[in-house]
Amino acid sequence: MKIAIDAMGGDHAPDAIVKGALLATQDPSIKFIEIVLVGDENLIKKEFKVNELNGKCSISIIHTHENIGMADSPTTVLKAKQNSSIAVGINLLKEQKVDAFISAGNTGAVMASASLQLGRLKGILRPAIATVFPTKIGPIIMLDAGANVDCKPKNLLQFAIMGDVYVRYIFKNSSPKIALLSIGEENTKGNELTLESAKLITSTPLNFIGNIEGRDIFKGKADVIVCDGFVGNIVLKLAESLAEDMFSLLKKELSKSYLAKIGSLLCKGAFKNFKKSIDYSEYGGAPLLGVKKPCIICHGSSSPQAIKNAIKVAKNFVEQHLNEHISENIKLYNKN
Amino acid sequence: MKIAIDAMGGDHAPDAIVKGALLATQDPSIKFIEIVLVGDENLIKKEFKVNELNGKCSISIIHTHENIGMADSPTTVLKAKQNSSIAVGINLLKEQKVDAFISAGNTGAVMASASLQLGRLKGILRPAIATVFPTKIGPIIMLDAGANVDCKPKNLLQFAIMGDVYVRYIFKNSSPKIALLSIGEENTKGNELTLESAKLITSTPLNFIGNIEGRDIFKGKADVIVCDGFVGNIVLKLAESLAEDMFSLLKKELSKSYLAKIGSLLCKGAFKNFKKSIDYSEYGGAPLLGVKKPCIICHGSSSPQAIKNAIKVAKNFVEQHLNEHISENIKLYNKN
Repeated sequence: MKIAIDAMGGDHAPDAIVKGALLATQDPSIKFIEIVLVGDENLIKKEFKVNELNGKCSISIIHTHENIGMADSPTTVLKAKQNSSIAVGINLLKEQKVDAFISAGNTGAVMASASLQLGRLKGILRPAIATVFPTKIGPIIMLDAGANVDCKPKNLLQFAIMGDVYVRYIFKNSSPKIALLSIGEENTKGNELTLESAKLITSTPLNFIGNIEGRDIFKGKADVIVCDGFVGNIVLKLAESLAEDMFSLLKKELSKSYLAKIGSLLCKGAFKNFKKSIDYSEYGGAPLLGVKKPCIICHGSSSPQAIKNAIKVAKNFVEQHLNEHISENIKLYNKN
Repeated sequence: MKIAIDAMGGDHAPDAIVKGALLATQDPSIKFIEIVLVGDENLIKKEFKVNELNGKCSISIIHTHENIGMADSPTTVLKAKQNSSIAVGINLLKEQKVDAFISAGNTGAVMASASLQLGRLKGILRPAIATVFPTKIGPIIMLDAGANVDCKPKNLLQFAIMGDVYVRYIFKNSSPKIALLSIGEENTKGNELTLESAKLITSTPLNFIGNIEGRDIFKGKADVIVCDGFVGNIVLKLAESLAEDMFSLLKKELSKSYLAKIGSLLCKGAFKNFKKSIDYSEYGGAPLLGVKKPCIICHGSSSPQAIKNAIKVAKNFVEQHLNEHISENIKLYNKN
């Protein structure tokens, strides 16, 4: 299996990407894959030297010379920057030279390239970004996290179906609890979109538990949280930032007295674990569900650990034949 | 000035409500007001005894004998429970026997009673709940936090106008920065509602700074954050729960080692301040803007301190003639 990674995408590229790839080659759970780093060969090779690449790693490089910035519009990639790491990576996937593509670069550009170059799976109206959230009872997914700002009930139904398949095959949960994100648990609560979507999802054999509220997202009440990409993107960014803001607030309070400063030294290990458990970037990437080939979108600030985890997600995606299962299920529900 | 308080509303009623009222009478910044506690006289008097009421407090009681539960539908209050503390409180306001009403009870019931019994200010299409959030640079407001699930651009324009007036007169900020909550800072980012709303708000003299993202809410980039009540309610509940969840996660980590346990004893004061700064219920109540009389909605879990702060908010609302300013501004913008 070959997995291509955008070596130029993300706040810490190519450093974090190369390190992440090396971590993956040393992880016993990620065997039998070949990693293809797509990006500026000179910069990547420099990182390899720093990180002491030895002959055992099955990593190759495909050189590109154009850069996509975080501020570049998605159409730039499609039209003007055909030799960027994103455009080349997606093209490798299209031409079946690799089995999956991972990028921590410009999300809009990856999404647009993937949707337009690879195309949607048959029957899928809109692809969706599925974000993984850590909860008390383990990881859950929320979709859509930002691919579609205005949705119709039928889109949310398809997000529910794709989320169900993802959690069944990737998290090995045989009956994922599906919920709609809304403003009250009662089935009379919600906006026009969620009220109509609830009717559609109820009519399927999915394990639909109804509405959950904002306060329930991280409590693990549902395994799949369905919402439109506008709400999902706001929720995702708020959750990420609150974690950061709260940690800096805590640090500020702890620096105010000598006693607290000494105390915080003793708590150092606990603080480190606390920070790690609220760092969403550790949880690998967010798969773009509904396009014809496996694409994983990573957070811009992804660490080497996060990149390694994304490689694991991509590997599972391919091995579990996720797209075949999504297609089967969409076909099944479309028939009913 | 007379302020009526629903003594039966909230998770800790009447205890926390009575204590909050007593705190208010002892606060030098809340002078010259008369507090009217609306609820079960026997229960309220029992609390007074516990809390040693002395003759100096200008607090009176209006007895009611019906209870509204958190699960009661808003129409129950309007139709079946006319002698509940919410129905009686709103009626006192309508008959001009009090100047403002505060409740930590069933939000839907307060909102429905206020909108239907008191009516909307002239020109207002939809009232909105304005929630106060603490940020690095001080308090800001977000509206609507849940009164309207499906909104039109004109509703969001009016929320911006009401929010601007509120921050100018209550927070004494002469030029509040108004922003739309969206999924990207660029003015091309957003859903149909926010894109259309942005055009309307841009055409006013309001200090409109464009879009902000979920990650910017608590950074204090804007003084007034405008969104529909569906998004606002999810954001509010997520923020509240994340604060709680993170604190319990931190406590869990700190309990894992002896060193950390000792350290956390030394940090006790800092932790207390940290917890207080992320406790939104401390920030008084959320005014329901756009109805004809001042109504303040408090969090169900409001502490005595939060109730006291809500009394302060109600007092300011009345003293600053907020509704007159809202009416003037709505009239002004409707003309343009």
